[in-house]
Amino acid sequence: MSKKEVRSGGILFIVSAPSGAGKTTLCRKAVDYFPDLRHSISYTTRSPREGEKNGVDYHFVSELIFQKMLDNSEFLEWARVHGNKYGTSVKDTQAILEKGLDIILDIDVQGAAQVKKKGMSAVFIFIFPPSLETTKERIRNRGKDSNEVILDRLETAKKEIKQAKKYDYFIINDNLDYAFERLKSIIIAERSKKERMLKKVKKLFDVIC
Amino acid sequence: MSKKEVRSGGILFIVSAPSGAGKTTLCRKAVDYFPDLRHSISYTTRSPREGEKNGVDYHFVSELIFQKMLDNSEFLEWARVHGNKYGTSVKDTQAILEKGLDIILDIDVQGAAQVKKKGMSAVFIFIFPPSLETTKERIRNRGKDSNEVILDRLETAKKEIKQAKKYDYFIINDNLDYAFERLKSIIIAERSKKERMLKKVKKLFDVIC
Repeated sequence: MSKKEVRSGGILFIVSAPSGAGKTTLCRKAVDYFPDLRHSISYTTRSPREGEKNGVDYHFVSELIFQKMLDNSEFLEWARVHGNKYGTSVKDTQAILEKGLDIILDIDVQGAAQVKKKGMSAVFIFIFPPSLETTKERIRNRGKDSNEVILDRLETAKKEIKQAKKYDYFIINDNLDYAFERLKSIIIAERSKKERMLKKVKKLFDVIC
Repeated sequence: MSKKEVRSGGILFIVSAPSGAGKTTLCRKAVDYFPDLRHSISYTTRSPREGEKNGVDYHFVSELIFQKMLDNSEFLEWARVHGNKYGTSVKDTQAILEKGLDIILDIDVQGAAQVKKKGMSAVFIFIFPPSLETTKERIRNRGKDSNEVILDRLETAKKEIKQAKKYDYFIINDNLDYAFERLKSIIIAERSKKERMLKKVKKLFDVIC
């Protein structure tokens, strides 16, 4: 894209949640709902789960490639989760924002902290499960993880919830429709903020300077 | 209400717009939609329009009573608009907020400036008409005002739009459903802010302190 074509930037939404809080489902619903909201596809060293497609769910890469990207500072954020590495490409993210499109980044608290540290303007949303008991249930019902992994995930969930206070918005996912209504509202409200609307309004009313 | 019964406070939403931008309709729709959102009823010295009810649309009071309330600092904000006085009772407003209910105040830019000056925590929303031409049309179509009043209102509209930059959110009312979706979203998003949710979340997760 040439410099001339660059429009005013989109909004970066960061969504984090402990494992099993329904974060991925909510983000997918948001991308389906808003035609001008994109999901940035993460790079990961983990193996694809059943049904996951390369370039759609994740960019599945080798340890070697991931390390090379890391060395070249190609990640906006990256994290090691349960032994695997996940990263978001700076270039991919910027390309979307420069088109004037919004992005929803479904990343963990470590990744969110890196985005914040880089001083990048973003809206931070934390999704809570209804309780820690339901988190346990949801992880178990996946039926894909060993007991040890389940316990590890629960400990991580507690640590992540402790970080929630660094976020701007809280959503409790005790009901998917209700939680989605909240996520949708946050996106619409953020788009309605004065700072985002000023350009549009100035075009309509020349009395505003 | 006794001190013991006081719950954590509600949110004060201030909605302003130039005449004919559909502010009153939008605020009424919001009050109908949210069971825990109240409309504070203003005091006014103007005469009731056809269909307006005392104690429902406004508290219609004499110049004498209004002046007495003013002298007793009973108004959160008050304004003189087109020769009439309008005011919001501090006591009425506080009573609603202390019940944990939110309030939507449909007031003009002068009133909003007073609330801001008093340092009262509030969310400021400005509604724009699609253009100044539509404002003119809408005022005319009311068919209740003289030509002189219409011109006066248009000049006021321009002055009010100049003040919009002091607000937090902008809504362009070019379509009522779409504008209401935005207002609804701002209310839901403000309720989802960390500060408002912390108490609720702390009850569910004792790891947050």
